Amino acid sequence: MYGPGDVRVEDRPDPKIEQPADAVIRLSATCVCGSDLWPYRGTDSYGWPAPMGHEYAGVVEETGDEVRTVKPGDFVIGSFFASDNTCEICQAGYQSRCTRAEPVGAIGTQAQYARIPLADGTLVPTPGLPDPDMVPSFLAASDVLGTGWFAAAAAEAGPGKTVAGVGDGAVGLLGVLAARQLGAERVIAMSRHEPRQALAREFGATDIVTERGDDGVAVIKELTGGYGAHSVIEAVGTQESMMQAIRSTRPGGHVGYVGVSHGTLPATELFFSGVHLHGGPAPVRRFLPDLISLIWQQKIDPGKVFDLTLPLEQAASAYQAMDQRRAIKALLQP
Amino acid sequence: MYGPGDVRVEDRPDPKIEQPADAVIRLSATCVCGSDLWPYRGTDSYGWPAPMGHEYAGVVEETGDEVRTVKPGDFVIGSFFASDNTCEICQAGYQSRCTRAEPVGAIGTQAQYARIPLADGTLVPTPGLPDPDMVPSFLAASDVLGTGWFAAAAAEAGPGKTVAGVGDGAVGLLGVLAARQLGAERVIAMSRHEPRQALAREFGATDIVTERGDDGVAVIKELTGGYGAHSVIEAVGTQESMMQAIRSTRPGGHVGYVGVSHGTLPATELFFSGVHLHGGPAPVRRFLPDLISLIWQQKIDPGKVFDLTLPLEQAASAYQAMDQRRAIKALLQP
Repeated sequence: MYGPGDVRVEDRPDPKIEQPADAVIRLSATCVCGSDLWPYRGTDSYGWPAPMGHEYAGVVEETGDEVRTVKPGDFVIGSFFASDNTCEICQAGYQSRCTRAEPVGAIGTQAQYARIPLADGTLVPTPGLPDPDMVPSFLAASDVLGTGWFAAAAAEAGPGKTVAGVGDGAVGLLGVLAARQLGAERVIAMSRHEPRQALAREFGATDIVTERGDDGVAVIKELTGGYGAHSVIEAVGTQESMMQAIRSTRPGGHVGYVGVSHGTLPATELFFSGVHLHGGPAPVRRFLPDLISLIWQQKIDPGKVFDLTLPLEQAASAYQAMDQRRAIKALLQP
Repeated sequence: MYGPGDVRVEDRPDPKIEQPADAVIRLSATCVCGSDLWPYRGTDSYGWPAPMGHEYAGVVEETGDEVRTVKPGDFVIGSFFASDNTCEICQAGYQSRCTRAEPVGAIGTQAQYARIPLADGTLVPTPGLPDPDMVPSFLAASDVLGTGWFAAAAAEAGPGKTVAGVGDGAVGLLGVLAARQLGAERVIAMSRHEPRQALAREFGATDIVTERGDDGVAVIKELTGGYGAHSVIEAVGTQESMMQAIRSTRPGGHVGYVGVSHGTLPATELFFSGVHLHGGPAPVRRFLPDLISLIWQQKIDPGKVFDLTLPLEQAASAYQAMDQRRAIKALLQP
C-alpha cells in the first residue's frame, strides 16, 4: 500500500531465512482483513509504502536451523503475531502479547511467499495436506475465525447465555459461529445486510437485529427481559460500536472486543455499566490446534466468509470490494 | 452539603416507614467516604443542599409490613445501593445494579436515623449484638471493605498471583486485605504515606512501591519479571490512576476498578494492553454474609482504617481531615 486507497502488486525479492527460528512458507491462499481497511481509508497511518497482509496458510518451503516442530512440505497455519509460545505470557494464553512477539503484518503475507519468525511457536501443522476446498477455512483460522473465537471466549459465551454480536464483518459472523460452538443458547446478530444476515443464520444466529446504535441497544434489551445480553461481541472498533456493545450488555455481563479500538471511552459510563471488558489483538495461537481439528473434521466451515476470490494481482479490487462492502471478505490466490 | 466544602449538621425530621418494604435504623456509627470528596472538592455536582452519607451499621427501629428477614432490635449492615436481592441481576451477584436499586446516598446516612428501602434484600443481620469495639469493622463492611473485596475479586486475586494496588485510601488498603484473604502470594501496595504503608503491611502487603504514574509502573514491571502484575486494584478513580493500573497489569491480567471513574480511556491503548477490566459500584451485598462472618469470628479487623473518630456534629471537620489526607477515614458517632 502506497497510501490510503493506493494498493499495488509488485515483484519483490523472495524472502529468505534470516534467523535460525524462521521458516519460509509458500502461501496457498491469503486475504484482505477488515483491519487492513483502517489504513486503506486513511484512519490509521503507516510509513508508506507498506507491505500488507497478516493472514496466511500454506506449505513450508524452508526452515532455519533451530526449527523443530515443522518441516518442509507441512501445511501450516499461523497467527498475525509470531510468538515463542514458551514465555509466561504465551503460557497463560496471550501469545499475541508474547514478550518476543513480532507482527507478521510488517512482513506482509499478501504475497506468494512469506518469512515467518519463531516458526516453532507460531506455526501449527494440519494432520495432512488438506483438500483445496478446505484451504479457505484454514486460512480463516489464521485470523478472522481465531479472532471471532477469542471474542466469544472473552465475552464468556457458553451454555444458558444470550450472546449479541455488534459488527457483521467476517469476524463478527465467525463470532456468531464461535458462540454457538461454545454452547450459547441464543445468539443475536446485529446486521442490516441481507447476505450477511443469511450467513449469520447459517453460522447459528437465532435472532437478527437490524437497528443500530441506541435503537439497537433498545431492541437487545427488549429481547432479554430488559436486562441486556449476558455476552456481547464487539467486532468493529469504532467508539460508537464499542458503546453499543457496552450498552447492550447487562450489569455483570461480558464484552469481548476485537475490533481494533479507536476513539475514547467515557470512564464514568463504563464504571456504572458494571460490565466485564476484555479483548485486544486476539491470541489466535491459543485456539489454533482446536480450530484446525474442528475444520479437519469438517465440523465447522468458516471459509464461507470468503464471498470473493481473486488472483493476487487483483488485490486492489479486493480492497475496493471490501471497502464498499460489496464483499464480506476477499480471498487472494497467489 | 450545601456546596463544595460546605458541610453543615442540621436537625431534620426523623425518617418514617414510607413503603412496606422499608426499615428504619438507628445508626450505631456512620462515616465519610472517599467518594464523598468528589462533590466536596467540586469535581461532581449535586443538587444542593444534598443529604450525605451512604455507609451504615446500626439497630433496626421499625419495619414495614412486608419486611420478613430483619426485625426491631437486630444489628444490621447494608450496602450503599438498596436491592431486592431477587431479580436476575441480583442473583448473578450484581446487587448494586439491581433493577429496583435505590441509592442510599440520596437518603443520607450521616445521620442518627435512616430509612433503608427494600430491607429484606438489603440488610444483613449479625449473629447477635456486637461489642462496641467491633462496630467500626461492621461499618467498614458497608462499603470500603465490601468495595475493596469486590476490587480484589474483580482483579481475580488468588493463589499464585501477584496483586498490585493503586490508591492507599481505605478502599485500596482493604483491597490489600482482601487480596491476601483470597490467597494472593504477593501483594504490592503503592503508597507514599508512612502511616498508610504501615497499615497496608498490617493488612498483608508484602511490598510497598512509593513511585507513582509511569515510574510506579516501571517498578511494578521490575518486581514482576518485566511482565506486570497478574491483578491490579484501582481505588482512586482519576484517569491517571486508571492508566497506572492498566499499565501495571500484564497482558491477559485483570484490573478490578472501584474508584468512581472520571475522565476518558484511550481505546487503542486499552485494546493493545490485552487486560481484563471489571469494576463499577461494588455489589457489596454479594459479599456481606461472608464479611460479617469473618468479622464476627475476629479473623479480620477492617475497622483499623478509621484513624479519626468524631461526634456527628463535627462532620465538617471529618470532611476536612480526609480532604487534606490527615485522616484515612473518619468515623462519625451519631
